[in-house]
Amino acid sequence: MEFYEETIKSTSIYKGNVTEYIVEDVKLPNGEMSQREIVRHDGAAAVLPFTKAGELILVKQYRKAIDQLSIEIPAGLKDKTDGDGLETAKRELEEETGYNAENWKFITSFYSTPGFTDEFLEIYEATGLYLAENPLSLDEDETVEVVVATYDEAWEFYHKGLLRDSKTVFALFYWKMKKLERELGK
Amino acid sequence: MEFYEETIKSTSIYKGNVTEYIVEDVKLPNGEMSQREIVRHDGAAAVLPFTKAGELILVKQYRKAIDQLSIEIPAGLKDKTDGDGLETAKRELEEETGYNAENWKFITSFYSTPGFTDEFLEIYEATGLYLAENPLSLDEDETVEVVVATYDEAWEFYHKGLLRDSKTVFALFYWKMKKLERELGK
Repeated sequence: MEFYEETIKSTSIYKGNVTEYIVEDVKLPNGEMSQREIVRHDGAAAVLPFTKAGELILVKQYRKAIDQLSIEIPAGLKDKTDGDGLETAKRELEEETGYNAENWKFITSFYSTPGFTDEFLEIYEATGLYLAENPLSLDEDETVEVVVATYDEAWEFYHKGLLRDSKTVFALFYWKMKKLERELGK
Repeated sequence: MEFYEETIKSTSIYKGNVTEYIVEDVKLPNGEMSQREIVRHDGAAAVLPFTKAGELILVKQYRKAIDQLSIEIPAGLKDKTDGDGLETAKRELEEETGYNAENWKFITSFYSTPGFTDEFLEIYEATGLYLAENPLSLDEDETVEVVVATYDEAWEFYHKGLLRDSKTVFALFYWKMKKLERELGK
């Protein structure tokens, strides 16, 4: 089966600070023409930071795109100079929560929604947390509040509809899975 | 702590078939002005369709935004007339795979990436699959191929980098979690 869609013309509609909106005229496998709307994005990294007591450190912030307060795992955009997502993850954890971590483990990575954007997200687990002496400060347009949650509290936020973005919902189910593994002695 | 960002001006930059790109001038909690790039989206639904033998039905398609072939759980956009995501999920399962299902269960829902879009995705589990007699046909600009995968095969796709969008990565970890629950007799 033939799948490839050839770009015949690519038009940049708008270049913002975080995204670039592009419309592409493409030739479908059946020879017909169609249009694809594409949001270019530099990518991001996120962290599941677990305290020694086994709580998860979350951040509360306002998300204009959904006009809601949202409780999420710490995350942020990749800088052009970041070697990989781990560098981004370390910086964002410090900026948003004031913590550094001794141990870092890659969990997974995914395209947020490849139907219309190339945003790619890497997710890490951080343990052995300690407070940075002079923590990096937030970006100028960011206002976040740290929320430390036990397992049950995090699911309570979920059931109340306060925690509902893909990376954080993934984080909750991942946390559940890890607990089951421990119960099984894995 | 004050989080709210007030919209002072909202400008529609482009309205496409699937997305609308909007730039908003907002007043931050500290009184400063900033801009938010927002992609409006009607939402979508996705399905984890399990065969009687316990395999997962996936679909392979070309994703122009990432210029890659992608193996994903069946999913599609909400129609304006859809009452809820379940209606969308049922239609997309039939269109993309030819299957209907006897049993439907809500798993979760999330905003794909609320930093810049309001796309909201509902995810369902479908069992008791049977082939539709006259299945609905795909949208004109869609080319998909059905891929039936065992648990191990699905993880193999993942490790080969063929399965890497948020909803399908979520699906794999969810599948793993369900297996652990069964092992524990839950």
